[in-house]
Amino acid sequence: MADWFSNGEAVGHVDASDRGMQYGDGLFETIAIRNGEPRLWDYHMDRLAKGCELLNIRKPPDAELTAGVLDALHQSNTPTAYSVAKIIVTAGTGLRGYGRALAETPTVLFGAFPALPPPVESYRDGLQAALCQTRLAINSPAAGLKTLNRLEQVLARSEFVATGEFEGLTMDADDDIICGTMSNVFFVTNNSISTPSLARCGVDGVMRRHVIETLRAQGIDTQIQAINLVDLKNVDEVFISNSQFGVMPVQSCADMRWPVGNTTRNVMAILADNGVIECRQ
Amino acid sequence: MADWFSNGEAVGHVDASDRGMQYGDGLFETIAIRNGEPRLWDYHMDRLAKGCELLNIRKPPDAELTAGVLDALHQSNTPTAYSVAKIIVTAGTGLRGYGRALAETPTVLFGAFPALPPPVESYRDGLQAALCQTRLAINSPAAGLKTLNRLEQVLARSEFVATGEFEGLTMDADDDIICGTMSNVFFVTNNSISTPSLARCGVDGVMRRHVIETLRAQGIDTQIQAINLVDLKNVDEVFISNSQFGVMPVQSCADMRWPVGNTTRNVMAILADNGVIECRQ
Repeated sequence: MADWFSNGEAVGHVDASDRGMQYGDGLFETIAIRNGEPRLWDYHMDRLAKGCELLNIRKPPDAELTAGVLDALHQSNTPTAYSVAKIIVTAGTGLRGYGRALAETPTVLFGAFPALPPPVESYRDGLQAALCQTRLAINSPAAGLKTLNRLEQVLARSEFVATGEFEGLTMDADDDIICGTMSNVFFVTNNSISTPSLARCGVDGVMRRHVIETLRAQGIDTQIQAINLVDLKNVDEVFISNSQFGVMPVQSCADMRWPVGNTTRNVMAILADNGVIECRQ
Repeated sequence: MADWFSNGEAVGHVDASDRGMQYGDGLFETIAIRNGEPRLWDYHMDRLAKGCELLNIRKPPDAELTAGVLDALHQSNTPTAYSVAKIIVTAGTGLRGYGRALAETPTVLFGAFPALPPPVESYRDGLQAALCQTRLAINSPAAGLKTLNRLEQVLARSEFVATGEFEGLTMDADDDIICGTMSNVFFVTNNSISTPSLARCGVDGVMRRHVIETLRAQGIDTQIQAINLVDLKNVDEVFISNSQFGVMPVQSCADMRWPVGNTTRNVMAILADNGVIECRQ
């Protein structure tokens, strides 16, 4: 079992009254550590800041969070060449009851874990995805944010633990594809790239943002656009993004099949040139 | 700070890797203790069983949960005449990542806390409610269940912590009234009683069930029926239900006003005769 750290000390436990435990009243970030550096740190901090604003939690200063991640890597002897760090920020230990004022003294935990890059074949041939039955609730007040309320992802991902797909695609009740259980999804149609809006549900991944901004900076149009299940089989290519593995082609979802096409390969090449080493093939 | 108990021992902390803390992967029940007895115990066990089924958690046997509650009351020296017990059941401490198989060894925590009945005036004159801006997400896979994903209630209730209303009514994105932040809501129109469906969002309270079943057993028609915000001001009476306080009239919500009418008083009298001592006026 991995250790957790707080204020530079190993902490195996949290107060049972912590609002993170009681209500999922908190946020987290899972950060790729590559060659000693947190990747896309500013994007993680941006999303965490947005989450703290919605949840009315005083966000710990970036410097404190940077130091906490480095300390967790160091104290846990986690290799910094290729690993993953997790930051948890909760509203802290408070009185019983849902309501509260500003959480001035959040609980802040840091974890560091060894990691391995996914196999080269996944990037070359694409991954197999499940189509999850669990639907994402529509118009969640925390849509897009990485809160500790993650039951939808737990339920969706648990659907295919036994069958072993790498990822599963999730829909809302309207059959619109929203994202993967741990990734965001992109579609290629007639050489045009799109990804669903996360304004109503889902998690707005930092790698999704990096993909969109990097492609747009290169003059490659990338649309925020819903795609319905009935149209999914007709898209030309599908790929997913995630902070840890970057971008990976999807070769199938349920009975739908897609080739690993030139657009996806081009996106991966661009990402590889922009700090996402996993996409270098 | 209240103590928590597990397996007959005081436990102030939980493993930081507990899935309750990491993802809100668990459930809870808040049980009224009256004259030494848990009230509506079977309904609490029913709801917990439904939650365990959805979340694929092995439900601890009722006898173990009964013993745990009594042990927490005893060890914390909480008066059993009038108090509240909380049971938390999580998927336990597991590997990282959303997906999992059946949680065979759940974390089970028990808490016991002193309580006081609400003031007599609230039952006589009705309470003031806020109208919450936070909307409940529609088509939640855990709709009706008391999971540890409670951010919607945290956000909604925190809206009126400063203004001091006793409760707040929450809506979905369609402006349908669903429930209170810690209660269920009933409407009286032309002597007919209704309460919203909780199939898409909200929490299916044990006192709501007790109210519906008790009224129906008395031949009093009680409908499961949505009511929209635009119609709320036109209902004749409003009351709310909660496991701790029973049934209480609502005298106002935002700028809407209702009298404490005969139907609500009759419901309270019936409840008082059926074990809900707070409703005896």
